[in-house]
Amino acid sequence: MTGEGVGRVRLRFLPDGPEVRVPPGVSLFDAASWNGVAIDSTCGGYGTCKKCKVRIVEGELPVSAVDPRAFTPDELRDGWRLACRAQASCDLVIDVPPLQTRPKAATVGVGRQVILRPSVQKRYLELSEPTLQDQASDLERIFAAMDDLELRVGVDVVRTLPQLVRASDWKVTAVVVDDELIGVEAGDTTGRIFGIAFDLGTTTVVATLLDLSTGTPVAVRSILNRQQPYGADVIRRISATMMDPTVLPKLQELAQGTLADLVGEVLEHGEVAPEEVYEVALAGNATMTQLLLGVDPEPVGVAPFIMAASSYPLMRASDFGVTVHPRAHAHVFPALGAYVGGDIVSGLLASGMTRDKRLRLFIDVGTNCEIALGNAERLLTTAAPAGPAFEAAQIRCGMRAADGAVETVRIKDDEVELGVIGDATPLGICGSGLVDAVSELVKSGLLDHSGRFIPDEAAAELHPVLAERLVAIEGERIFVLAWAGEPGDPEGAVYLSQRDVRELQFAKASIATGWALLVEELGVKVADIQQVLLAGSFGSYLSPASAVRIGLVPKLALPRIVAAGNVAGEGAKMILLSAQERAAAAALVHEVEYVELSDRPDFNDLFIDQLAFPA
Amino acid sequence: MTGEGVGRVRLRFLPDGPEVRVPPGVSLFDAASWNGVAIDSTCGGYGTCKKCKVRIVEGELPVSAVDPRAFTPDELRDGWRLACRAQASCDLVIDVPPLQTRPKAATVGVGRQVILRPSVQKRYLELSEPTLQDQASDLERIFAAMDDLELRVGVDVVRTLPQLVRASDWKVTAVVVDDELIGVEAGDTTGRIFGIAFDLGTTTVVATLLDLSTGTPVAVRSILNRQQPYGADVIRRISATMMDPTVLPKLQELAQGTLADLVGEVLEHGEVAPEEVYEVALAGNATMTQLLLGVDPEPVGVAPFIMAASSYPLMRASDFGVTVHPRAHAHVFPALGAYVGGDIVSGLLASGMTRDKRLRLFIDVGTNCEIALGNAERLLTTAAPAGPAFEAAQIRCGMRAADGAVETVRIKDDEVELGVIGDATPLGICGSGLVDAVSELVKSGLLDHSGRFIPDEAAAELHPVLAERLVAIEGERIFVLAWAGEPGDPEGAVYLSQRDVRELQFAKASIATGWALLVEELGVKVADIQQVLLAGSFGSYLSPASAVRIGLVPKLALPRIVAAGNVAGEGAKMILLSAQERAAAAALVHEVEYVELSDRPDFNDLFIDQLAFPA
Repeated sequence: MTGEGVGRVRLRFLPDGPEVRVPPGVSLFDAASWNGVAIDSTCGGYGTCKKCKVRIVEGELPVSAVDPRAFTPDELRDGWRLACRAQASCDLVIDVPPLQTRPKAATVGVGRQVILRPSVQKRYLELSEPTLQDQASDLERIFAAMDDLELRVGVDVVRTLPQLVRASDWKVTAVVVDDELIGVEAGDTTGRIFGIAFDLGTTTVVATLLDLSTGTPVAVRSILNRQQPYGADVIRRISATMMDPTVLPKLQELAQGTLADLVGEVLEHGEVAPEEVYEVALAGNATMTQLLLGVDPEPVGVAPFIMAASSYPLMRASDFGVTVHPRAHAHVFPALGAYVGGDIVSGLLASGMTRDKRLRLFIDVGTNCEIALGNAERLLTTAAPAGPAFEAAQIRCGMRAADGAVETVRIKDDEVELGVIGDATPLGICGSGLVDAVSELVKSGLLDHSGRFIPDEAAAELHPVLAERLVAIEGERIFVLAWAGEPGDPEGAVYLSQRDVRELQFAKASIATGWALLVEELGVKVADIQQVLLAGSFGSYLSPASAVRIGLVPKLALPRIVAAGNVAGEGAKMILLSAQERAAAAALVHEVEYVELSDRPDFNDLFIDQLAFPA
Repeated sequence: MTGEGVGRVRLRFLPDGPEVRVPPGVSLFDAASWNGVAIDSTCGGYGTCKKCKVRIVEGELPVSAVDPRAFTPDELRDGWRLACRAQASCDLVIDVPPLQTRPKAATVGVGRQVILRPSVQKRYLELSEPTLQDQASDLERIFAAMDDLELRVGVDVVRTLPQLVRASDWKVTAVVVDDELIGVEAGDTTGRIFGIAFDLGTTTVVATLLDLSTGTPVAVRSILNRQQPYGADVIRRISATMMDPTVLPKLQELAQGTLADLVGEVLEHGEVAPEEVYEVALAGNATMTQLLLGVDPEPVGVAPFIMAASSYPLMRASDFGVTVHPRAHAHVFPALGAYVGGDIVSGLLASGMTRDKRLRLFIDVGTNCEIALGNAERLLTTAAPAGPAFEAAQIRCGMRAADGAVETVRIKDDEVELGVIGDATPLGICGSGLVDAVSELVKSGLLDHSGRFIPDEAAAELHPVLAERLVAIEGERIFVLAWAGEPGDPEGAVYLSQRDVRELQFAKASIATGWALLVEELGVKVADIQQVLLAGSFGSYLSPASAVRIGLVPKLALPRIVAAGNVAGEGAKMILLSAQERAAAAALVHEVEYVELSDRPDFNDLFIDQLAFPA
């Protein structure tokens, strides 16, 4: 992994653009686009539209193979270059002419403005009919009508042409994705261009149907990952494949079935035909990705934790087992490591972690917790094995965040106020409720900083009323959040046990050790962190105050702790809306440094330091 | 179609290479290779090995995107460039350093020396085992071991990696075709690299299994095209698809089955496993190609005669329905027109028509006859609908060239000497026998120059003995070549009828009109033609003397009329042996001018002129 601040090149965009630092080899077009400098383009950066003309005012930039087709020798001498083909390898000052066309933009991710530049485009063509004097083949005729593009095509598209072009009276719409002609449709269908973004989580899977011509989400659906019966977390699913060779194909089928169901639902709700979806994108962790693609995950599960591939090749949507346009392109986010997967790369893209000047901490809380720390200069990432506490899996009264789950807890004077999902009778406690409960008990003093319930006598003295909730069950001390029957009878009550507190301590210590080591590695101080992004659906429900109080996140002013939402899903949308963002995601893998914690000699010391709750 | 001599650029290779003229845009590497100037290269011209260094001594050549990675700024200023990335757009003088490596070569085609540069290559890799300090994915590890290549890969290859690299103790062989990693094999398999060249004829289909590491043919087999029951020629097969929509899939299946049978035979004979074949190439006419690929051929069959595509995209061997390596690449020769197909482009490549300075005439005699005339400066091509005479299909005693077919005829004094295939009793007459018979009868004077048998009395006077063979059957005059029973009893005899002569006259007039029009179009004289190449299996059997005597070919000294053999099959072999030859085949489509005869106002006049036999 590279990506250190050293070795970057400095680019200044005239007349009034910013000065930015980018890794050498990034195209001027991308560097500009990432930094909000708009340069004309209609081809999507493939060197074919020849619109992205810029002039190098200072610095050396070689002439690309395409430049001589766009400029005269005099212009080349004057420094004119196509920005999409210009790879900066030294500091440059670049003059950007005013825009001729105004691109549309959409807001996605963490307040990210994405200029609409989908890799899918449609062209309506009125072809001339062949004659003995003009015997160009059907395919040549279509290519000639789009001579600004240099296109690949598959034989199955050729197979459709003879009948199609004649039946539609030579009036057709070409469907181009990147540099491939994926289809030719009868008549003018330019108004209908769709894509589907998937967030393939271990627990929950989300699909968003996007209108790529406007950037608007047309329909969103989420369902549980059908692989659930094979284990709640990735390690259990990997183990299942290791114990029985028939499980891998089954898990692949279940993942594909989950996506296929979602596709059916969003298409129906959006009133979009399957063949109108020309591109799909998927963010998932390394294990989910390998299982979906039928790649044996065993080496991901055992040390030294090796993926089959960090970046996947371009695929077809059929490789995901979903029925959309038969030649629709499919993209999988690249991964930084076996436990910092494509979902996190997607999240980092959506939150702009590699472009922001502020020092920010990104935490995706879950069974496996992914952490990133840094800014546009340098970004470090790691994975912390938090265990299942946040999914409330090994918590005595733990349950998924569903109706009846306690999701917030406030202890005020002698009262315990519970927020229950669905305003129902409390049935159990979910991850955010667990964090809240522990946090409030620490605040109340009933839990000491080492994580132990204080002795009964001390509790009775400190909080005579609350202390009545502190009882024992099978020899273990518990704090009852909600009685089921008579107060004092723990039968059926929703409670927090001493062991539950220990589970949470281990989980939060693991995470805190992760970011503390990144802080150290980056050579900064906790106080320098300007924002903490809590990613993932769990992150959205977590109370920032509680997260600070238990030491899950660094002690910062609460407005600096922000729930970032489902950033993995946002990133997947972004790469459908903009081919440039897709390139940025691919580049991220080389920009971000992955730090492996499991072989750090100082890990255990730091971990023990972090077990206690902050004073 | 372009390809006129005008607009070409002149390249002079130092120290002692030739001066050549090539179309602008051709890479220096290709121009050199085509003209026998060897330049170092190991990557096959993909700009990755950076070995093909040359220095521009005179003329301007822009710096390519890859050049700055191969040369210092000083070297670039001195004119150093990578030849494979250098596209000449003006006259140049190029200094070529002496070879560091000596390429192997094979002789194929019409005496063509092909430098062995197959697009398939194998690399034996001993990979380092991953550790916690080196967590590169399996795929990254393989790519890193071949960092001179920039490779694509499919997800199905990724799927094989986790198990394969570990089971083979990290010792593997990578299989690369062009810029794609198509497979990874356990251990060292670098010694086994094979390809199969197909010549998909309307009548006969040939497969050649080639050892791509040595250029040697390992096994060759030919069988009849299984589509035969649907018609002897392309027009009948196209008609069959037009009359019944279920016929196209059937014809595709039959073509695929024919190829699959051949593959089975050559692999068995060559003791090669299917998965050791990494690339296949196919030469076929436009109709055969479309039927094989399941593309509706109707527009090829009716005016204005339009193909679905002139150049086909890269395919997999599975698109041909053959079982070799699952990701083996498959190439189809591009076509110049609906009736000057990939088989002819292959033949032109194999015969070096676009590289030879001599003015040459290429004739592939068949139901549809393809003709090319020209040299390296300018090459014209056309198709002449000769009809089925040469396949002896509408000839009264016509039969295929099989046992019992009269294939040569000599009339000497009073004797008729017949050459019969298999030295059997004559059963009928095949194409070459027909040409011979007519030619000998013209020579004897029994047929006059207008193509009419002379009156009985005149015949009896001219050749009293031979005249006895001139009898009538159902009112039509015939010349008996072989009596079945008693001489004088035409029952069961093998003969040539007056109508047969007319059929042949129409066929040969069509062909002669074709080349006569090309002679006119090119502005040359028949006497300027330095060589006539008779291509195809029929061409090999045709007697040059007879072909001249009936006016099928121009009247030239007989040694100048050469049987070129199965040039279509030779071209298919060439593109497997050399990626450069494949590029040359693709370029041919732009270099050769196609002349459509069917709308020429002077066609009928010329045709009538050509009906008679030459004096």
